[in-house]
Amino acid sequence: MVDDSSLSRHVVVAPGMCSGGSLIFGQIGDWTWESVAAACHTNVHAARTSEGQPAYLSFYYFHVRGGQVVHPHGLTFGDELQVTSRVFQFGGQSVITLHRLAPAGLGLADAPLDPAELYERPHPDCLYAENFNRWIARSRPSSNRQLSEVAPPDFSYSGLPRLPNSYSPRTLVGRARETGSFYSAAPPGLVAAGPAHTSEYELDVARDLNGAGLVYFASYFSIFDTALLRVWRSLGRGDEHFLRRKVVDQKVGYFGNADPGAVFTITVHRWHSVAQPRIEIADMAMRDSGTGRLLAVAGIEIDGDASYMDASP
Amino acid sequence: MVDDSSLSRHVVVAPGMCSGGSLIFGQIGDWTWESVAAACHTNVHAARTSEGQPAYLSFYYFHVRGGQVVHPHGLTFGDELQVTSRVFQFGGQSVITLHRLAPAGLGLADAPLDPAELYERPHPDCLYAENFNRWIARSRPSSNRQLSEVAPPDFSYSGLPRLPNSYSPRTLVGRARETGSFYSAAPPGLVAAGPAHTSEYELDVARDLNGAGLVYFASYFSIFDTALLRVWRSLGRGDEHFLRRKVVDQKVGYFGNADPGAVFTITVHRWHSVAQPRIEIADMAMRDSGTGRLLAVAGIEIDGDASYMDASP
Repeated sequence: MVDDSSLSRHVVVAPGMCSGGSLIFGQIGDWTWESVAAACHTNVHAARTSEGQPAYLSFYYFHVRGGQVVHPHGLTFGDELQVTSRVFQFGGQSVITLHRLAPAGLGLADAPLDPAELYERPHPDCLYAENFNRWIARSRPSSNRQLSEVAPPDFSYSGLPRLPNSYSPRTLVGRARETGSFYSAAPPGLVAAGPAHTSEYELDVARDLNGAGLVYFASYFSIFDTALLRVWRSLGRGDEHFLRRKVVDQKVGYFGNADPGAVFTITVHRWHSVAQPRIEIADMAMRDSGTGRLLAVAGIEIDGDASYMDASP
Repeated sequence: MVDDSSLSRHVVVAPGMCSGGSLIFGQIGDWTWESVAAACHTNVHAARTSEGQPAYLSFYYFHVRGGQVVHPHGLTFGDELQVTSRVFQFGGQSVITLHRLAPAGLGLADAPLDPAELYERPHPDCLYAENFNRWIARSRPSSNRQLSEVAPPDFSYSGLPRLPNSYSPRTLVGRARETGSFYSAAPPGLVAAGPAHTSEYELDVARDLNGAGLVYFASYFSIFDTALLRVWRSLGRGDEHFLRRKVVDQKVGYFGNADPGAVFTITVHRWHSVAQPRIEIADMAMRDSGTGRLLAVAGIEIDGDASYMDASP
């Protein structure tokens, strides 16, 4: 630990933390749990409510900003990273954790991460992640559909630094939950690209559930990617282009979980930059197909390869 | 490190290492790479051939034996494990790594793992894993279909202990590669249960490729589980039964990789125990649908819930 709220570690990237899929998001999430456990002196991994029910430090909002060197699908085995993490208080039942994944060769200082770096002056080479977690518990033991906010009694956050209000993601996430999109107005400089696409996804019980029987937060990334891949294929883009995609920015808001047997309807709107056609945004909402309930919203900004982006406006 | 060939660690199970899916197998594989790196003084994660091409310590055979307390799909967040790993020499281009995942509460000694424990007298509570890895490199840079055996020049294995010949998995794995099954004769005490099932699986580029662009070894577990789930559904078994399955023993042999666009044909034969109907085996082979080439073989022994196993012999 660098100080009471900060951790720093040297990481050699292993197969289990990089891929074209969602392993890197799962790894960042594990670092969030470790960081909160260390900073809040709480047994995050086996937390309980005051009634003795399991409490989970669930992911409510996961934001990643990819850098020129370190970006989510660009890591490979043996890459060496300096990972710096810092935990901020954010009310009595939630917490914000920021991470910087820097190439180890940059030799950045092990100092506590200044939130202004992430929000205002990110290093162009680094990946930054912002995790907004809330304590939840199942309202009924056998259902993932009713989760309520409840923190374990030993969750101690008063010693944590506060995130400056101007950086709070609450308004952004609240609006995404209301409107089903992180882009309630057209993103500046971008125009809608083609019609909306809609596809269905059946919850995959062989892949999507975590060790507590809830839909795993990292699986939402895979589910949105599955929908995005279908859209790209419908535009005539090959799988190799999908595998080469460079995520500049990705936001996921988690508004509901689901039980085995659930089917999701995922709607994808696309935007692309007028000035730089290789920059495009996928604006996605995932709903329970049966009830229409909004389960998650994602916004992915991708820096594609101009050669194929041009071919399919 | 306990000695030159052995590592021991205390692990708190995190979301990224447990699930109904294949995360635990990916985690065990990462421990194998770490153990080999430490025991062989080789940069396993960024290894190169003498020509400077990437070399991968690929998984050729992955064997897991589940225990009564620790079994592959039975772990949850916060479980505390004592993980003991030991690396054995196995020729100049391969290596065997054994792991024991013990409940931390058992308080087993941190002594180097005796292979006789895994092969002859396993502790009933523990999970054991046996990884047989071979060094490979792509024969052509852009294809996953032609991989050749080649070790990095700094792979140093002469200081490692030898695995007693009687425990060598070479014959078992060689026969599985020849016959497409780990059960060339009917398993003792088991009888065939119903007809063979065949299904197709399209390689999922949003999930199945690792950070080197190869089909991830842990994804083979998910692909076989996907085929198994389809069989169970065809037998009228519900998803909740699948999620409760207890893997007693699982073997996977890796005989080929694949490129994006590949489609696999997976054949499943089932066996069940005459004396204990809740014990059943799924005997599976995965072939490239286009060429018929054998890519992998799996054998999964499952201790099911008698109440539903009885309903669907």
